[in-house]
Amino acid sequence: MVFLLFSSSLHAQKIMGFSDENAVKQADWEKQYDAQLNAKDLDSWMQYLTSHPHHVGSVQDKANAEYIAELFKQWGYQTQIDSYTVLFPSPKTRILELLGANPFKAKLEEPAVNGDKTSGQKSEQLPSYNAYSADGDVTAELVFVNHGIPTDYEELERMNIDVKGKIVIAKYGGSWRGIKPKVAAEHGAIGCIIYSDPADDGYTQGDTYPNGPFRPKEGVQRGSVLDMPTYPGDPLTPGVGATKDAKRLDRKDAVTIMKIPVLPISYEDALPLLKSLGGQTVPASWRGTLPITYHLGPSREKVHLKLVFNWDMKPLYDVIAKLTGSEFPDEWILRGNHHDAWVNGAEDPTSGLVAELEEAKSVSELIRKGYHPKRTIVFCAWDGEEPALLGSTEWVEDHEQELKKKAVAYINTDANGRGFITAEGSHTLEAFFNEITNVVIDPQTGVTIKERRYAKSLVDADKDTRIKLMDNKYQKLEALGSGSDFTPFLQHVGIASINIGFGGEAEAGVYHSVYDSYDHYTRFGDPGFQYGIALAMTAGRITMRLAGADELPFNFHIFYKTVSDYVIEVKTLLDNERTKTDIENQMIKDNLYNLSKDPKKIYLSPAAKEPVPYLNFSELDNAMEQLKTATEDFQKVNVNYSKLTKAKGQQLNEILYRAERSLLQEKGLPRRSWYKHQIYAPGLYTGYGVKTLPGIREAIELRNWNEAQENIKIIAQTIVTYTNQVKQATNLLL
Amino acid sequence: MVFLLFSSSLHAQKIMGFSDENAVKQADWEKQYDAQLNAKDLDSWMQYLTSHPHHVGSVQDKANAEYIAELFKQWGYQTQIDSYTVLFPSPKTRILELLGANPFKAKLEEPAVNGDKTSGQKSEQLPSYNAYSADGDVTAELVFVNHGIPTDYEELERMNIDVKGKIVIAKYGGSWRGIKPKVAAEHGAIGCIIYSDPADDGYTQGDTYPNGPFRPKEGVQRGSVLDMPTYPGDPLTPGVGATKDAKRLDRKDAVTIMKIPVLPISYEDALPLLKSLGGQTVPASWRGTLPITYHLGPSREKVHLKLVFNWDMKPLYDVIAKLTGSEFPDEWILRGNHHDAWVNGAEDPTSGLVAELEEAKSVSELIRKGYHPKRTIVFCAWDGEEPALLGSTEWVEDHEQELKKKAVAYINTDANGRGFITAEGSHTLEAFFNEITNVVIDPQTGVTIKERRYAKSLVDADKDTRIKLMDNKYQKLEALGSGSDFTPFLQHVGIASINIGFGGEAEAGVYHSVYDSYDHYTRFGDPGFQYGIALAMTAGRITMRLAGADELPFNFHIFYKTVSDYVIEVKTLLDNERTKTDIENQMIKDNLYNLSKDPKKIYLSPAAKEPVPYLNFSELDNAMEQLKTATEDFQKVNVNYSKLTKAKGQQLNEILYRAERSLLQEKGLPRRSWYKHQIYAPGLYTGYGVKTLPGIREAIELRNWNEAQENIKIIAQTIVTYTNQVKQATNLLL
Repeated sequence: MVFLLFSSSLHAQKIMGFSDENAVKQADWEKQYDAQLNAKDLDSWMQYLTSHPHHVGSVQDKANAEYIAELFKQWGYQTQIDSYTVLFPSPKTRILELLGANPFKAKLEEPAVNGDKTSGQKSEQLPSYNAYSADGDVTAELVFVNHGIPTDYEELERMNIDVKGKIVIAKYGGSWRGIKPKVAAEHGAIGCIIYSDPADDGYTQGDTYPNGPFRPKEGVQRGSVLDMPTYPGDPLTPGVGATKDAKRLDRKDAVTIMKIPVLPISYEDALPLLKSLGGQTVPASWRGTLPITYHLGPSREKVHLKLVFNWDMKPLYDVIAKLTGSEFPDEWILRGNHHDAWVNGAEDPTSGLVAELEEAKSVSELIRKGYHPKRTIVFCAWDGEEPALLGSTEWVEDHEQELKKKAVAYINTDANGRGFITAEGSHTLEAFFNEITNVVIDPQTGVTIKERRYAKSLVDADKDTRIKLMDNKYQKLEALGSGSDFTPFLQHVGIASINIGFGGEAEAGVYHSVYDSYDHYTRFGDPGFQYGIALAMTAGRITMRLAGADELPFNFHIFYKTVSDYVIEVKTLLDNERTKTDIENQMIKDNLYNLSKDPKKIYLSPAAKEPVPYLNFSELDNAMEQLKTATEDFQKVNVNYSKLTKAKGQQLNEILYRAERSLLQEKGLPRRSWYKHQIYAPGLYTGYGVKTLPGIREAIELRNWNEAQENIKIIAQTIVTYTNQVKQATNLLL
Repeated sequence: MVFLLFSSSLHAQKIMGFSDENAVKQADWEKQYDAQLNAKDLDSWMQYLTSHPHHVGSVQDKANAEYIAELFKQWGYQTQIDSYTVLFPSPKTRILELLGANPFKAKLEEPAVNGDKTSGQKSEQLPSYNAYSADGDVTAELVFVNHGIPTDYEELERMNIDVKGKIVIAKYGGSWRGIKPKVAAEHGAIGCIIYSDPADDGYTQGDTYPNGPFRPKEGVQRGSVLDMPTYPGDPLTPGVGATKDAKRLDRKDAVTIMKIPVLPISYEDALPLLKSLGGQTVPASWRGTLPITYHLGPSREKVHLKLVFNWDMKPLYDVIAKLTGSEFPDEWILRGNHHDAWVNGAEDPTSGLVAELEEAKSVSELIRKGYHPKRTIVFCAWDGEEPALLGSTEWVEDHEQELKKKAVAYINTDANGRGFITAEGSHTLEAFFNEITNVVIDPQTGVTIKERRYAKSLVDADKDTRIKLMDNKYQKLEALGSGSDFTPFLQHVGIASINIGFGGEAEAGVYHSVYDSYDHYTRFGDPGFQYGIALAMTAGRITMRLAGADELPFNFHIFYKTVSDYVIEVKTLLDNERTKTDIENQMIKDNLYNLSKDPKKIYLSPAAKEPVPYLNFSELDNAMEQLKTATEDFQKVNVNYSKLTKAKGQQLNEILYRAERSLLQEKGLPRRSWYKHQIYAPGLYTGYGVKTLPGIREAIELRNWNEAQENIKIIAQTIVTYTNQVKQATNLLL
């Protein structure tokens, strides 16, 4: 019960980066901060913000930005709305039909349901579609491609299925959705349909809306298919802010726009299409839970898909609210969440946004009581996250030089709900974050959110993991991939970032549909907004402690240890790939694939692969060894902050927060120069899912051994540069 | 390609148990044996044998026995039909209905389908039912219990669901079906419904009959629910043959008859019942693929189940055909397969039976050409396997003393189909069996059945298993549990047994339904009966080599090594159970189960368990050490057979085949004295699935530490007795 003690006996509390004296004050401010938090605010703001669909370009989108700005202004923040102009397509024509003797036309409609007062706002809703699909009018046979990721196409090849000239139908899941049409187009498909299978998102998961929280048969997952793993933001202005007079690409030259038409559909609409498929039955792991036998196709009758979009330029409204720091006004702590939604967006993103607003409100109350954070706090409410992280990306690109100088850290939230704390972020912030989860209390159980998360992780684990985890309550930060607005901050500009939220008990099958509403959220997401308050307590502490710390609470040694694990991972990946290749090549040579297969089915032996070479990791190993020593040395002397002059202290803090910048390489990652961070990136073929040490890891996955070797060198050099920063910090403290 | 060489270059071939000279002769006979095998025989016999339903007591059951006997007689075997009289219930009344405002009455009918000429033989078919269900007329709420095995009830308890006074509905799978009503009754349920979920046995697996091989929506899996893990065979005559004048129990005293009414149904009939369930949704691993959300129940409306049976005494007809051995007429090699079916039974059991008939035919052709097996061959065609291994059990009990003296080995087959060789058996026969799979050629690929099975096992394995298996083509025999007629031979009398078959490509979802027909089997099971011939080649060699060997090819050292692995397994089981208990008790003490659970759902913390003590394995370890030495010593001297006198040779062979008898203990296993084998038994709570070293393993699973300790002693003593047999054999050879 050491943690309860921590929170109830404040005078004993140490806070990273604070002198003992300032820690006592900080703890007191946090207590007062908590006391200001009021769930009723979250409820009433959510009611307003979700009262109408508020996607990019809608009336309510602008109204929400103004509403949010007005709140910030009321609370005393220097507030402005930064506007950008971006390409934002919306559907003009959507036709999906099965031709032939028993034709079927997809409804592509989500009906209003009882007890959900916004689900019927037909005229204001964006229809279900995938943003940045190509225009197209294609008629072809249909083929089922499971999740439509590269390994699925390897299986299809063995089953002798070619998607060239075909339309593919893929299940949601297994990757970010934009990967599916991208990979389909790479294999020659001319159209792509994505549907939600009830196995993953529908009746199999639980009772469907409005009886329960899960996706009803007509529910559709909208979403972007812009090739964001290449670069996010406005496709016409890569790398620069989409200001009015920015230089823009021709649309035809924007490589991130999808090459083929793609449309998301419900499982009700998918059923007749899947029934029309002939050919072999699918591999067991590809099956869904519709009441049919799943076949690979091609379909007996052709499918017609016609999509025409309005390729409009639309305005974005980013709300930026500043509170200037008393001591270091040019050191910024940024806290953001997006405000745009696909439709009414109660869970995504309003649940996180209203927590952020509550944080701002409560901080403003503290200010009135005499609280003066040393550093500048910047609250941000982004527009256009859903289509392509538009608002955050354009703003970051527009303010790149200023951010490189001033940004200490970026704190992101997005959808939030009942359950357990989850967190991904820069590993220098891990120890700092763990101190905060020690003191925030879980509203349902009364223990700390760290205790509760620990309980869950242990109960869910298998025996061996339990033995490993037992009594180890420390929460490792997951690495950041993509999927929300931290991406431009971290991966383009090198600002230490953290993304947090609660979840796991907020059951939902309404993601990106008209049913993600206030009515749904307050029944199933976070009734009473208890976890909205818990989020405000957690994110608020992160912001305030970073803003108020004497010495910034970055820990380099944890960063070293984590990257060291990544180095082991990529070496193991290479070794495993080598063993796997050797075994499979031997099996191919021994004809085992042909001997084992059912002669009545088509399942070709795979082709032999080039053997995997040994790579030279020595430069990276040496760099890591130096980093180890440097971070250990820094740990030893990092007790001397109080002895520094103010100027030296400021100099140290600058080194600490700018160190993350040295993890960038200006030329960026292979095939995507926008992504400059050498430690964290979203996967080129996962979309959201992170690839750590991406230059090495993805080259190995793509079996490009030269590229892997080159990137070992690049990352080694990056680590050396970073190590020099750590050494400089150490020297200051000696 | 060493194995192809083996079969084509016969003069180089060594055969276990044969002198070099006799091996050459034997190989030549086998070549002639193969040449006699004709797939057309299998086809025409199957057509006759499956032309009408032929369950116990039916007209066709008797006609089939007589037809089989006539064939054996034609081929020159001393043939007889041994008849027994047994309790065999069949349904008089079957009512299953959902009451309330929207009533539903289950159809309980499998309709005739196009292209299946026997599926419409309504008047001759046994209705779908579970044999040895209790009579009953119960009305109660329904509860879903997943597979209805003990671990499912632990979960139900945590979800605060009590089945007392309820009717349960369980999915097929997870155990032998008879376990489900037994465990339900132990928990106070008053009725049990079992259905085939399409996830496991229906459209999710593939196209349904008659379009494809899989279970159609009306298809029902019949089957026995007699408590065979307690004792199989006629419930009224445990331990003795059910001859006309046998002493019989009163039906009410027959403990193996199920205590509650139980009925199997189709997934079409199950759907409205499952839809009627309220309460929490089921755990994710319990879900099926019907287009509904699965709930635990209880049902909103009550269910009415009424079952009345004709508790008739019926005759069994076991066909026994002998060919007396030329040198050792009192050493018997028994080869059997059952002939009764639930309905037309093409796959189960006729596919295996027609292979056995072909073996007998081909052997008879050899006899005419001058072949004289040294030992007596006994071909058996059992009646009443489906209800309770009736025919084999009663015959074995009736001939127990004679079999104990004479039986060398029992070779069993049952359903057979296209695919890969599978084999379970006494481990003394493992090396012998592997020699045979070296020479039988797979009909689809032209390599040996061993090569093909190796290819399959390697292709299906994960990386680590591949590394372990690479180039190791040796096929370990699985241990025998139950599920076919080998049980009385092995587990009651201690006769070394082996059960073989081909499968894995014969797709079927017609098990125990009216659709297991000649039409289905010849489309999907084994078109052209190629694998029927492969089975005859394999089983025929087993029979002939055992019948013809100079020295019986039993290998004690492999038995030692296998049992040694089992000893490690039970020790590991105990250690794992201890660690698991310690961890879980700590987690309970730390309140982690309560902290991790969703407060909106019912999921109680488990109760703390008694810590697991350390047991004394030393007596068993010492016994195993002695067995190791003894089997190694035997290996060394087991090259001297040719130096023995004929009398000593015969004495040695008797020791070899009777050694398995010393693995029995007369008092049997705890709670089931009929099962006497101390190494192999079907699980008390798995039904078919084997439990090796059952006395120890099941006691640990039941957390009965005293019983486990006692059984360590009993098994140690058993091993000592067995070791003495091995030593005697060694002494003869010195």
